[in-house]
Amino acid sequence: MDSQRFTTGLEKLHEIDGEAGKMVIESLQSIAPDLAKYTIEFPFGDIYQRPGLDLQKRELITVAALAALGHCQPQLAVHTHGALNVGCKPEEIVETVIQMAVYAGFPAALNAMFTVKAVFSERGLIEAE
Amino acid sequence: MDSQRFTTGLEKLHEIDGEAGKMVIESLQSIAPDLAKYTIEFPFGDIYQRPGLDLQKRELITVAALAALGHCQPQLAVHTHGALNVGCKPEEIVETVIQMAVYAGFPAALNAMFTVKAVFSERGLIEAE
Amino acid sequence: MDSQRFTTGLEKLHEIDGEAGKMVIESLQSIAPDLAKYTIEFPFGDIYQRPGLDLQKRELITVAALAALGHCQPQLAVHTHGALNVGCKPEEIVETVIQMAVYAGFPAALNAMFTVKAVFSERGLIEAE
Amino acid sequence: MDSQRFTTGLEKLHEIDGEAGKMVIESLQSIAPDLAKYTIEFPFGDIYQRPGLDLQKRELITVAALAALGHCQPQLAVHTHGALNVGCKPEEIVETVIQMAVYAGFPAALNAMFTVKAVFSERGLIEAE
Amino acid sequence: MDSQRFTTGLEKLHEIDGEAGKMVIESLQSIAPDLAKYTIEFPFGDIYQRPGLDLQKRELITVAALAALGHCQPQLAVHTHGALNVGCKPEEIVETVIQMAVYAGFPAALNAMFTVKAVFSERGLIEAE
Amino acid sequence: MDSQRFTTGLEKLHEIDGEAGKMVIESLQSIAPDLAKYTIEFPFGDIYQRPGLDLQKRELITVAALAALGHCQPQLAVHTHGALNVGCKPEEIVETVIQMAVYAGFPAALNAMFTVKAVFSERGLIEAE
Repeated sequence: MDSQRFTTGLEKLHEIDGEAGKMVIESLQSIAPDLAKYTIEFPFGDIYQRPGLDLQKRELITVAALAALGHCQPQLAVHTHGALNVGCKPEEIVETVIQMAVYAGFPAALNAMFTVKAVFSERGLIEAE
Repeated sequence: MDSQRFTTGLEKLHEIDGEAGKMVIESLQSIAPDLAKYTIEFPFGDIYQRPGLDLQKRELITVAALAALGHCQPQLAVHTHGALNVGCKPEEIVETVIQMAVYAGFPAALNAMFTVKAVFSERGLIEAE
Repeated sequence: MDSQRFTTGLEKLHEIDGEAGKMVIESLQSIAPDLAKYTIEFPFGDIYQRPGLDLQKRELITVAALAALGHCQPQLAVHTHGALNVGCKPEEIVETVIQMAVYAGFPAALNAMFTVKAVFSERGLIEAE
Repeated sequence: MDSQRFTTGLEKLHEIDGEAGKMVIESLQSIAPDLAKYTIEFPFGDIYQRPGLDLQKRELITVAALAALGHCQPQLAVHTHGALNVGCKPEEIVETVIQMAVYAGFPAALNAMFTVKAVFSERGLIEAE
Repeated sequence: MDSQRFTTGLEKLHEIDGEAGKMVIESLQSIAPDLAKYTIEFPFGDIYQRPGLDLQKRELITVAALAALGHCQPQLAVHTHGALNVGCKPEEIVETVIQMAVYAGFPAALNAMFTVKAVFSERGLIEAE
Repeated sequence: MDSQRFTTGLEKLHEIDGEAGKMVIESLQSIAPDLAKYTIEFPFGDIYQRPGLDLQKRELITVAALAALGHCQPQLAVHTHGALNVGCKPEEIVETVIQMAVYAGFPAALNAMFTVKAVFSERGLIEAE
């Protein structure tokens, strides 16, 4: 039985992503509930449970990877919330995205920054335009 | 004049990447010395100089991005050295790469881990096979 | 003369993608009619005509590749229709996308699943939300 | 001081991208003004200033790279304007994107072509649909 | 406890990849044994166990995805063996890779084909050169 | 019959890539001769035959795309030869690759430059190290 991984994964998902994570899971129910289950079990039940790297660093490396890959803007929005939820400073997220200009190019960094900007604006961290 | 960016960039490159960074720069001299100059000035003279994110976190997000992108193994080797040089624990680098299985898939994580393994082995952190 | 490749390609495109493929071709007429011509001739006039792999398998590997690449959501929608049109079971398409979490990461699989979900919903295979 | 790079970069940005480039820079002010600064300094203050490749060729290779990468449609729109602004013929831009079908696949070429089409339509080069 | 997933995963890994899979797992022991554990549990203990898509189709979509991604040649070699081990015809693997020229471009298809060729040659399916 | 596309494609391949292109085609004969046929027909029989963009520009945009994609070093070597064969100046190739640092990141540009360097060295354009 995987119920332990699912239960602790769901708690971790809630701790990190709050409502945003929950909405992703719910929106999978009509098409692929097992993909929702795996998304809870493996990333949140296995990986984010691990010692050796604190949650803030885990969120920053996730932001970095999602910004660099370029085709993951919905997940980048979720994990920008996640990074803030676990205590990363807004400045650290911005710095992480700026640094991606070096490794993935300016378009990837710019597109990621606009996603981060929308989340910051939604949370009142910067003024909405 | 950009001499200030170049000079402080070269110092930062040496602090982070030691000889590995220097070799990359030297190997560009016969073909594109200006690309070497930009590589020192922008990443190391501009970005890695910035406050807001400490060097250890900067190296971990770089390891994450290079592992996720998948086609950057030489740079991943250089920055595995870099992460260790600025004080990241070997365990943190390993955790960063494992987490990339979630975001970029198992092949990207596995190929990156073998690059990290070669660097760890070279530095005597694990036994050579 | 390429008329044979174009004619058989157009028939194959119609067999696989129905109206969706036709709309892509039409929308290219004002800007690059030759790209429309090549899109009919090479993929549908050459490749999808070949023996050695049946059309259902051809559509499933296309769904896999488009999901893994991540930046091809419009084409993934067209080929989700295509896979269903040539007789793939909805479950097979869902399984193909779930499996991409292993090889291209969870964000690629999740984004692809939401594209598949929109097509399934449009065709009444799942309840619209 | 980098003021020289910034000033000449801003002029070059204006020459190439006109208002489109300026809007990107402005939209970064509330979140990451330094990323705007780097975007002016490095690409436009350093790279596009260089001899050895004329501006028309620089814009065509940028269009090619952005089309091939696939996740850079906003930048592709900006540089489609840029290519036209520096004197590239519409036909050259279309040919560049068609050729990307060979190197990055048909989906990347098709998605890029629809971005180019929107810019051409906006500028009255083709009839709006 | 995940022992069930690990045990059935290890059996599936052996069924599909034979010695090639085992060597990857062993080569992780000195650096990241938990990544080996996850590689067995999630792909082979969860995904490849699922009904809804037979093993031959699962291997063909994996070959497609790895060929399209481009930076996964070691995994493509392992799964070319895997596809043959579960009964895919050599012709089906070749067709899958050819089709990737359409979706990921000719370079991705060509590089993948040379990896497949090396495996076929190793297994005596084609004459070694 | 496609013999016209094949024949003119083969001539164009020879004009651009010389022996390098021929070797790629020959190495496909034992595994997938039809992929060789398509590689001659579509890129060289269709695309490189087109008016609207001269061969030098076609080669530079190919170099740009291959450098940006990152996983196409063998093709980048072939087209570095190709660019020189059709009259591009070495400096133009170097500039094209430097510019990719902006759009695809420094690792992609650096890896591409080392591939270009190997070709330049092979042709005696720079001193071998």
